[in-house]
Amino acid sequence: MKDKKVLIVGGVACGGKAAARLMRVDPRADVTVLEKGEYISYAGCGLPYYVGGVVKEYRDLMTTPIGVVRDENFFRKVKHVTVHTQHLATRLDRRKKIVTALDLRNGEEKEFPYDKLVLSTGASPLRPPIPGSDLPRVFTLWNMPDALAMRAAIDSGKVKNAVVIGAGLIGMEVVEALHDQGIQVSIVDLCETPLPQMMDREFGNLLRAVLEKKGINFFGGEKVLEIQGYNGEIKSVKTDKREVPAEMVLMAVGVRPNVGIAREAGLALGSCGGVIVDDHMRTSDPDIYAGGDCVEVKNVLTGKPVWQPMGSVANRQGRVIADNIAGLPTTFKGVAGTAIMKAFEYTIGKTGLTREQARLEGFNAEAVTIVDSDTPHFMPGSAAIQVRIVADRNTRKVLGAQVFGAGRADKRLDILVSAAAGGLTIDELADADIAYAPPYSTALDPVTHAANTLKNKIDGLMVSWSPSELAEKIRKGENPVLLDVRSPDEVKTQGTLPYETTLIPLGQLWDRGSELPRDREIIAFCKISVRGWDADSILKRLGYEKVSVLEGGIAGWPFELRKE
Amino acid sequence: MKDKKVLIVGGVACGGKAAARLMRVDPRADVTVLEKGEYISYAGCGLPYYVGGVVKEYRDLMTTPIGVVRDENFFRKVKHVTVHTQHLATRLDRRKKIVTALDLRNGEEKEFPYDKLVLSTGASPLRPPIPGSDLPRVFTLWNMPDALAMRAAIDSGKVKNAVVIGAGLIGMEVVEALHDQGIQVSIVDLCETPLPQMMDREFGNLLRAVLEKKGINFFGGEKVLEIQGYNGEIKSVKTDKREVPAEMVLMAVGVRPNVGIAREAGLALGSCGGVIVDDHMRTSDPDIYAGGDCVEVKNVLTGKPVWQPMGSVANRQGRVIADNIAGLPTTFKGVAGTAIMKAFEYTIGKTGLTREQARLEGFNAEAVTIVDSDTPHFMPGSAAIQVRIVADRNTRKVLGAQVFGAGRADKRLDILVSAAAGGLTIDELADADIAYAPPYSTALDPVTHAANTLKNKIDGLMVSWSPSELAEKIRKGENPVLLDVRSPDEVKTQGTLPYETTLIPLGQLWDRGSELPRDREIIAFCKISVRGWDADSILKRLGYEKVSVLEGGIAGWPFELRKE
Repeated sequence: MKDKKVLIVGGVACGGKAAARLMRVDPRADVTVLEKGEYISYAGCGLPYYVGGVVKEYRDLMTTPIGVVRDENFFRKVKHVTVHTQHLATRLDRRKKIVTALDLRNGEEKEFPYDKLVLSTGASPLRPPIPGSDLPRVFTLWNMPDALAMRAAIDSGKVKNAVVIGAGLIGMEVVEALHDQGIQVSIVDLCETPLPQMMDREFGNLLRAVLEKKGINFFGGEKVLEIQGYNGEIKSVKTDKREVPAEMVLMAVGVRPNVGIAREAGLALGSCGGVIVDDHMRTSDPDIYAGGDCVEVKNVLTGKPVWQPMGSVANRQGRVIADNIAGLPTTFKGVAGTAIMKAFEYTIGKTGLTREQARLEGFNAEAVTIVDSDTPHFMPGSAAIQVRIVADRNTRKVLGAQVFGAGRADKRLDILVSAAAGGLTIDELADADIAYAPPYSTALDPVTHAANTLKNKIDGLMVSWSPSELAEKIRKGENPVLLDVRSPDEVKTQGTLPYETTLIPLGQLWDRGSELPRDREIIAFCKISVRGWDADSILKRLGYEKVSVLEGGIAGWPFELRKE
Repeated sequence: MKDKKVLIVGGVACGGKAAARLMRVDPRADVTVLEKGEYISYAGCGLPYYVGGVVKEYRDLMTTPIGVVRDENFFRKVKHVTVHTQHLATRLDRRKKIVTALDLRNGEEKEFPYDKLVLSTGASPLRPPIPGSDLPRVFTLWNMPDALAMRAAIDSGKVKNAVVIGAGLIGMEVVEALHDQGIQVSIVDLCETPLPQMMDREFGNLLRAVLEKKGINFFGGEKVLEIQGYNGEIKSVKTDKREVPAEMVLMAVGVRPNVGIAREAGLALGSCGGVIVDDHMRTSDPDIYAGGDCVEVKNVLTGKPVWQPMGSVANRQGRVIADNIAGLPTTFKGVAGTAIMKAFEYTIGKTGLTREQARLEGFNAEAVTIVDSDTPHFMPGSAAIQVRIVADRNTRKVLGAQVFGAGRADKRLDILVSAAAGGLTIDELADADIAYAPPYSTALDPVTHAANTLKNKIDGLMVSWSPSELAEKIRKGENPVLLDVRSPDEVKTQGTLPYETTLIPLGQLWDRGSELPRDREIIAFCKISVRGWDADSILKRLGYEKVSVLEGGIAGWPFELRKE
């Protein structure tokens, strides 16, 4: 049988995976990879950790687990795949089924015929035309050369202050990398809180507080006007509100899919700017597949197109592409909008829809946030996490989640990813037989606790308000009693809400509850609002009707606290 | 409206939870708890950690997260629940709706009437009538007094050697607790491998190897004949094969549900010995609910009754009981057989069915085991884990999983718990948008990798053998070529299989593959069998037909390795 010429344009995540998988499952495949860069099949998501010195050798990002570098030689010897690095694909002739590429080392043009083509051309960072953005040490961080250049700048010892423009995932990961090396870091973003695309304002604020505690400046709601330099050196970054000293700038304002040759060849592009593919990762041309950062896919919860450039997604897609080229029917159903980030000892992450996104999509969405320990308080290392679950009131299915905390929040996020993928209702989730032993979770895992709390809320057993909702009530002039049921000592050490509060420790509430007015809403809280929920029950027993709870209590309050 | 007298017999996990929840959701409930012990509402699963000194104060096991002891006074003041400790329920009169209890402090008999009764009478450890089992320092570990007594024995300094009889969860948790305090520990069990009820033989063997590396003796397949003493002190434990020195013995051979008053009152008991309850946790008497260790429930995968005495399950059931008494329709669908344990730096856990259990239940079950890093190899702290997934070939749904390793295996187990709860197929699981960033997972999470590998196996793209299956092939006289594709250096440092192997490093296989015989099965492996899978593909391309892979490679081999 004749060989099947498969040409893959782009050899980092999706392309590398597709090539390797093809050689495993398609005995006819004759695979060639064109990569414009010098490096292939490297761990792009590891770049911030190389910049930060956590990963000592950049080569470690390109090796197999046993230390073999995945270069052209490796692909040829082990995979029998031909790789051409420094080959930039410039033209796609779909009629002749030929890709033209430029050998960047000598300017030579070459033609590569194909039977099946895979476009995994990736994405590129945006570089807005800010005056001064052409100065040295103004970086983007997207590929290996970017990381090497940033590392060299840091190692030069000349960088004492750095400004990160853009508080998205990449920007925020680099913040920690720079801070850990003694550099004073400032972040500037047009939005008020970090990770504005990913987390809602409350979770963004929690992260902002972490940054500020570490001595990192977060200048939210500010616009960069100019990167000011002198003698070819950066001096400062000028925003519409201030001037921030800097010897290094990272532009991390976003990326866009590389769809140049796809567009010129007339392949269908979508509303997010990516190449449109079907469930089999096939483009509008049946002989052309596309995957990774250059395509848009469906959000599994909304069915709408989204663009989610992530290494994990690209790898999954590469496998699906290979299977389909090999004639194995495999589908890629879409993404759930999952993302996660480590910020010092904290973890912050999200999957699915926020409540507001879900409501915009037409869901009858409700959500609740809880604060809980990741392991029992008596176990060493026990730390708090916040879990927010979003569900549909009608179907009761999980629609999304957000997590934050110094505890093991990544596990809870992935439990919820799996739950949403399986269409679990909050009732089924609360029933799930999650593994319990004290080193791993509380007897009722924080996820179980969150699911139960959302059940209480949706079933009308509990009225609760998120911090933003409470702040909004106060701003609108409502005058609830903010009932603090902590001990006076806790108030001193933990601080309290920046409003007038009424303190009745929980143990006195049965006796003293009747002191409270009957004509105002009573919103109970404590450190994490578990006692707040007890207080709610007691007050209802005492005949109070308009009683509610502040979600997450003081530990979950993402705004300023008042110190007594 | 008249109060509803709710009487709860047993106040540790299920009972305490039911009482607290009732006061939150049932305005009419007047709740009384009878507890035979001195302590209530404590974290029973934390007892081994108190014995091991990880938890310093036993009171920490009974406090709320803010340090308030959950005693009778706390329940009265905060929950308005009346608790009688040291009250042993002795008789249940269902006609009169009265429970008679003995006040253990003074021998007084008292009657407690009820409208609704909750039986959460727990379980008790078995104490087989081995000669010498009445000696001092022969312990069981089930409740707080047990833990205090064990702790005192350790603190006396007289215990240099301890024998744990029974290698179930409790026994194994105590092993680490004792070892950490400098005590030489030996385990004796009738079964060949640890955790015989929970893990299959391969995973049990992996744990056994960990124990032996730590200097702990595991005497599997042995029967204890006598605990030998002298002058009221234990001297040794005599088995059918040896005599083991000991100054302390823990009997951890199992527990059984406490169903005495339930049986005498004529409530229906089940095949596992527990009280039978319906989906609403109601017994055969509509006014009596039961939960926690004294009931049996359904396994959600098989629909058959099982007895799974776990603190997490008891807590979930307590909540369901309270809701149903309060008139809120809530169901408890069952358990999945999830269990987890920490053994030094290792985690071992299980959910659902093993392949063999699933086949006995009539499923067309298949399984695969993979070894993978929990985070990318370039991240500090990256460690290996093994994940075994069991799925149904017909429906492709996940039926169960086992995990083991020094890496973060608990997260992967819980992803799989959630996946099984949602009825995810391996295809959907492989597609799930699991959170990826280098501190948390590999680009394709070990769970994704395991799901993909099982797809390969079920779809006939890959034939693979578990270590036991390979050992069985060799035992039966089959003569496969065991093709090792590691580097010679790795063979030296990692050791190799205890059989004749053929070494061709992967990079040479395209050239040298034809050296291999064509008439024998070739089973490829490497450190973790990812290169083994590459080798499989290469050999197929070279025209070999009977090619397969050893699952997990050398890292997953649970039996003796041969050192070169």
